Amino acid sequence: MEFSYTPLGTASATPSVYRYPSAHVLNIRGRLFLIDCGEACQIRLRRMGVSFLKIDHIFISHMHGDHVFGLFGLLSSMAMVGRTSLLNLYAPAAMRRTLDFFLTEFGEGVKFEIAFHSLEAVTEPTVIAPLRNLDILAFPLRHRMPTYGFLFQEHEPEPNLHKELVQQYDLGIYEMACLKRGQDVVREDGTCLRSEDFTYKPWEPRSFAYCSDTAPFPNLPGWVKGVDLLYHESTFAEALQENAATTLHSTARQAATCALEAGVGRLLIGHFSARYPDLSVLLEEARSVFPNTDIAKELTTFEIPLKKHC
Amino acid sequence: MEFSYTPLGTASATPSVYRYPSAHVLNIRGRLFLIDCGEACQIRLRRMGVSFLKIDHIFISHMHGDHVFGLFGLLSSMAMVGRTSLLNLYAPAAMRRTLDFFLTEFGEGVKFEIAFHSLEAVTEPTVIAPLRNLDILAFPLRHRMPTYGFLFQEHEPEPNLHKELVQQYDLGIYEMACLKRGQDVVREDGTCLRSEDFTYKPWEPRSFAYCSDTAPFPNLPGWVKGVDLLYHESTFAEALQENAATTLHSTARQAATCALEAGVGRLLIGHFSARYPDLSVLLEEARSVFPNTDIAKELTTFEIPLKKHC
Repeated sequence: MEFSYTPLGTASATPSVYRYPSAHVLNIRGRLFLIDCGEACQIRLRRMGVSFLKIDHIFISHMHGDHVFGLFGLLSSMAMVGRTSLLNLYAPAAMRRTLDFFLTEFGEGVKFEIAFHSLEAVTEPTVIAPLRNLDILAFPLRHRMPTYGFLFQEHEPEPNLHKELVQQYDLGIYEMACLKRGQDVVREDGTCLRSEDFTYKPWEPRSFAYCSDTAPFPNLPGWVKGVDLLYHESTFAEALQENAATTLHSTARQAATCALEAGVGRLLIGHFSARYPDLSVLLEEARSVFPNTDIAKELTTFEIPLKKHC
Repeated sequence: MEFSYTPLGTASATPSVYRYPSAHVLNIRGRLFLIDCGEACQIRLRRMGVSFLKIDHIFISHMHGDHVFGLFGLLSSMAMVGRTSLLNLYAPAAMRRTLDFFLTEFGEGVKFEIAFHSLEAVTEPTVIAPLRNLDILAFPLRHRMPTYGFLFQEHEPEPNLHKELVQQYDLGIYEMACLKRGQDVVREDGTCLRSEDFTYKPWEPRSFAYCSDTAPFPNLPGWVKGVDLLYHESTFAEALQENAATTLHSTARQAATCALEAGVGRLLIGHFSARYPDLSVLLEEARSVFPNTDIAKELTTFEIPLKKHC
């Protein structure tokens, strides 16, 4: 029941000696989701020992090069290791031209289908991939070109029955099925067995949201409300707030303010300007607003633990 | 008077945990030349502390992705660090479409001119960049698409005068200039001063050749004859000679045979298949034919020392 997030690259604009361009991988119960695909993404995946073949869904936030220049290499390598299964690509509309160019000029060995899902119509949080046990939503961000954030939300688990009540009431299979479905049961003797008394939620569904690149805007905290883990860009420190405003990026303080207003569980900041080899100024600034903040350290896996009930 | 070669990436096809895609940098007396630009090339350049702005000439051997997918990121980063000076790009004709696509879709910030030099007309060794003190030649290789090797050849140095003869004959400025130009001088008293007696070559011009990707073919050793340093692809060991033949690559033995027939000074092998995490089989095989062979170890700088005369 793993739900973990691993940043592969957290540089903004141009890579530095310390950091790679944007790319991130989520492992949700063994299914891998790639978010953004900056240059050298495939090299970072190999470093993590991640099989390309296990990635069936790629999400591209926007068409700036530092978020997409790794896609050609990754798709080529997927072809070379013999991929045949469908790959889903969720991206801004402009990706279509880039994908067509790649397939025309470099796609000779690509034997798998790429289903392109344009995010063009997304103007508010919208389910773009309704999967088993999981909804993936996209929502617009505020940047210099069409840009989208992503929310990964586990479904509510099927309720469990209190074992001691199953025994005490000698429940039949049909009765158990009804109660688990949320239906109350009236027995022949008139006894009413209420679903809510006999069941409990075995664990809390988990969620992760990705917001990069974006300036702050009023709707955003509501759209990522209560997520367990929020990755939010923090390109600049507050001292360079004007640069952030001009380029439609966020400061560390603004990222933390979003986390605070949204009431998230934990904030990870990333997408750092190369002018910060030492990130402590960004971390301190964010923590002064939202204490449960950490650096999205590359190649580090952050788990969202399962909160069980019994 | 540096003349050095640094492999940035020596993987073939797809990168491995151990090796990056093809990219190589030459430093010839402080001028930097980039040969091939596989994914993450700019990251490797940063790792080496190489300023992007010092690269004015990029050479692309062929349009397989593992030799070009780093170009978009490098050009973008050159723009971001404020490049304004001309960049020369020497590549197969098909590069034109890729360059146009890049400039249309991702080139908004590119404020420098890119002079594209198509190698289409190259059918034998041809000077493609006649520079000060240096000729750069391209020649066709034998691969699955139009592919070119490159030869970097220093010019013959201007001869020096033997100092003791300058004093002994009390040479005048005009006489010295004539003798250095190779002209004999006849003095008023009838004495003939022969240029070859009064001058010597101060050092040997140096040369480097790059051959990747290619199958062996009869003309190649002659085209790289006597170079000081030869980089030659060795994708496979001899046991997989059939794979090499099918894919138009070389084995380590074939690379070494080329080096032997060409009488080069030193051979560096690279472009290794990912199936060889341990390269010793390839190195031993090559050395059995051409002993002065080494692995082109990534991020290692190989100097061609100046052979001085006096």
